[in-house]
Amino acid sequence: MSERADTAEPRPDELGDIAAEQAESRHDEDDRLKGEFVSAVLDAVEADDRDRARELVSPLHPADIADLLELTPSERRGEVAAALGDLVGAEVLSELNDYVRDDLLDALLPEQVAEFAAELDTDDAVAIIEDMEEADQQAVLDAMEPEDRAAIESALSYPEESAGRLMQRDLVAVPQHMTVGQVIDYLRDNRDLTTDFWEIFVVDEAHKPIGTCQLSWVLTCPRSVAMADLMKREQTLIPVDMDQEEVALRFQKYALISAAVVDGSGRLVGMITVDDIVHIISEEAGEDILRLSGAGEGDINQPILETVRTRLQWLVVNLGTAILAASVVGLFQATISKYVVLAVLMPIVSGMGGNAGTQTMAVAVRALATNQLTSSNTIRQIVREFRIATANGTALGILIGVAVGLIYGNHDLGIVIALAMLINNLVAGLAGILVPVTLDRLNVDPAVSSAVFVTTMTDVMGFFSFLGLATVWGL
Amino acid sequence: MSERADTAEPRPDELGDIAAEQAESRHDEDDRLKGEFVSAVLDAVEADDRDRARELVSPLHPADIADLLELTPSERRGEVAAALGDLVGAEVLSELNDYVRDDLLDALLPEQVAEFAAELDTDDAVAIIEDMEEADQQAVLDAMEPEDRAAIESALSYPEESAGRLMQRDLVAVPQHMTVGQVIDYLRDNRDLTTDFWEIFVVDEAHKPIGTCQLSWVLTCPRSVAMADLMKREQTLIPVDMDQEEVALRFQKYALISAAVVDGSGRLVGMITVDDIVHIISEEAGEDILRLSGAGEGDINQPILETVRTRLQWLVVNLGTAILAASVVGLFQATISKYVVLAVLMPIVSGMGGNAGTQTMAVAVRALATNQLTSSNTIRQIVREFRIATANGTALGILIGVAVGLIYGNHDLGIVIALAMLINNLVAGLAGILVPVTLDRLNVDPAVSSAVFVTTMTDVMGFFSFLGLATVWGL
Repeated sequence: MSERADTAEPRPDELGDIAAEQAESRHDEDDRLKGEFVSAVLDAVEADDRDRARELVSPLHPADIADLLELTPSERRGEVAAALGDLVGAEVLSELNDYVRDDLLDALLPEQVAEFAAELDTDDAVAIIEDMEEADQQAVLDAMEPEDRAAIESALSYPEESAGRLMQRDLVAVPQHMTVGQVIDYLRDNRDLTTDFWEIFVVDEAHKPIGTCQLSWVLTCPRSVAMADLMKREQTLIPVDMDQEEVALRFQKYALISAAVVDGSGRLVGMITVDDIVHIISEEAGEDILRLSGAGEGDINQPILETVRTRLQWLVVNLGTAILAASVVGLFQATISKYVVLAVLMPIVSGMGGNAGTQTMAVAVRALATNQLTSSNTIRQIVREFRIATANGTALGILIGVAVGLIYGNHDLGIVIALAMLINNLVAGLAGILVPVTLDRLNVDPAVSSAVFVTTMTDVMGFFSFLGLATVWGL
Repeated sequence: MSERADTAEPRPDELGDIAAEQAESRHDEDDRLKGEFVSAVLDAVEADDRDRARELVSPLHPADIADLLELTPSERRGEVAAALGDLVGAEVLSELNDYVRDDLLDALLPEQVAEFAAELDTDDAVAIIEDMEEADQQAVLDAMEPEDRAAIESALSYPEESAGRLMQRDLVAVPQHMTVGQVIDYLRDNRDLTTDFWEIFVVDEAHKPIGTCQLSWVLTCPRSVAMADLMKREQTLIPVDMDQEEVALRFQKYALISAAVVDGSGRLVGMITVDDIVHIISEEAGEDILRLSGAGEGDINQPILETVRTRLQWLVVNLGTAILAASVVGLFQATISKYVVLAVLMPIVSGMGGNAGTQTMAVAVRALATNQLTSSNTIRQIVREFRIATANGTALGILIGVAVGLIYGNHDLGIVIALAMLINNLVAGLAGILVPVTLDRLNVDPAVSSAVFVTTMTDVMGFFSFLGLATVWGL
């Protein structure tokens, strides 16, 4: 999140060295707020000692105040926020977890929310307003100044999670004939320009970006140099309707600090800066683990009923596949009743297939998400996984085969479980890569649905290969 | 990766509009190189038509040339790199996957590697050199200019994955009494300063940072303003030995573009910029899914034998736990042989526990990694997971209990499996959060070792609760 309000007016007196040292005792070595500190604040609020609470909290960075509110039990958040008063400002709100923020906003009047939103860059204001209910949203917009309101309404007209929602409209764009000196004078004379920018965009008459210029280049060059000679023409333009995940990948791949956002006709309509992207990069990279496990967005602040619903849906789907796998076992009841040891050993074969399949699947899902696995190397990766599965399946098969053969004094049983282990590892390796690759080709998020297919296959094939071989072998 | 060589001398002629349009046909809609394009380059190299290959590749960004080499089969990479000649420059090397780069570097002379390293920022040069074998590393260092060499040797003296390795030494630091005008003159006069910086650090006489100033503030202020009045005193200082994961979290939390790196005595020794952090943020967030599945670093370019070894280690550990779980089944062979249906149904109970445990574990691992789960809210989250597990376990228990009761016409069997399902869901929910939290307290990475504990518990308790209840119930 950018911090326009904070950076536009530097407050030299804000935090001296002594306060900085004190602040250290508020954080543990991992920069998390200490439990004792959080308790101290809550105790002060409890005791109605607002001065003490404010004194404790005031040296904190807005991001830390947001953390503090998130760490406060939900039923006490309103009370704590009220006690802290203006310390919980627009920046804190923009740093807050969505659920926690919605909780707090519900307690505010539309005028108050509008006031907060007006203090923020468009992108941060939109982040606050976009999740509100239609009626509340309208009330807030009605309470805003026409100019701010127009900017936010325009941003809201773009799809959710698109570049149009992420971008800010405040940017610096100059024509190419301007010189460095003219640009500096222009910046000094126009004090209502944003002060939060890292690059200057050079545009043509139609307001289409034709180059980008880092501020360091402007600062290190003589006044007489023309922007056209200084700018870098090779630039990454972000279409306004691009999905935020794509935007994040572009920033990462091309090491961007900021990028111009263009509309359908190529005109410059906004700017995205990397500080608004880092949390998206982290979210997008981290959410695969949650999706793969069926934990939805996995937000610990989500209302518990929503969490139960999300997870239960996934578990019920898995119950269906578990019953399917069990019905395979059902086919072999006669074999099992003759030789109960098969029931003891069969979960080993199915479980190990699940483990091996999950390894391959995790690698494939990450490689797809980071654009490392493309049509050019898919075949090569499938062959690679097949070779890995053959090696691992052989090693595990020999291991379990010898152990079972010795323990139960039955060579045939050892051979059967060894073969079943190899077969199920091959199934796991192939399913682990083919399922995510196929889903990706079908434009289905491989992280969301791969696991259910892969583990169903390894369960079914684990039971089928082991019990089937045992039946054929006449065990 | 920063691109000093590229940005220091902007090449206005580099990529015109026409080339940009052509470039579009090289990428698919997800900004990945198209399979046909990669094949065309490989065909040109195969046909020994270097001009054609270079013509195809020359409009690409270094990051794309790196992608191209990664997508080339490993046995052909040397040949392709040789054909592309100077198009595979220092920047391309610094963008390359570690394994692919090591492959290519092995084919180069130390002098050639030294030449590449000299073109890069210290951090990128270190990234290239740090993975080489000791002897090769020394040969490269010997071939470097004394100044570059000293910078790299000093960086290598810091621990791997620490801020000292990530930082660059080229930065702009000024005393606080300087005015904006003096700073601009200083920057214009010292053309050998880096041009890749986004903020100016203000230091005291002991070279300790006392404030930071965004370039945009310098550009928008009159020449007469003193840096001391312009700078922001509240700043995030990075200790030189801080782990890169911590550095990445700081950048994310405080929305930093660059940060000062300080040594033990608080003196400014380097600077880290966000473009060097974004790939760490993505890696750190993405690697949890790989660790949790036991896929190691999960790099598709890793030599296959290393991959087999990494994954096999994990699978063998899991084989041990699978045998442990199977031995629980072994305790109930008498019960199973009396009623084989139990063998059919038992994988459902254990498998569903595994699914529920994985959900909780994924959420806990992410919440720990992002500092959302701290000592202040651990109890609350445990209670939350217990409530979720109770709700889901009850729902799933009723579902499977009724289904089994009807299908097998045996109420008692339905009651037993319903109870076992509830019990195992509770075990899963508690293990899913307690295991990662405990490991984190013990300073063990919860992503690496949680899964094996959690799934062992859900397997063991799944079999034990179901078969145990069935035995007690006299089924």
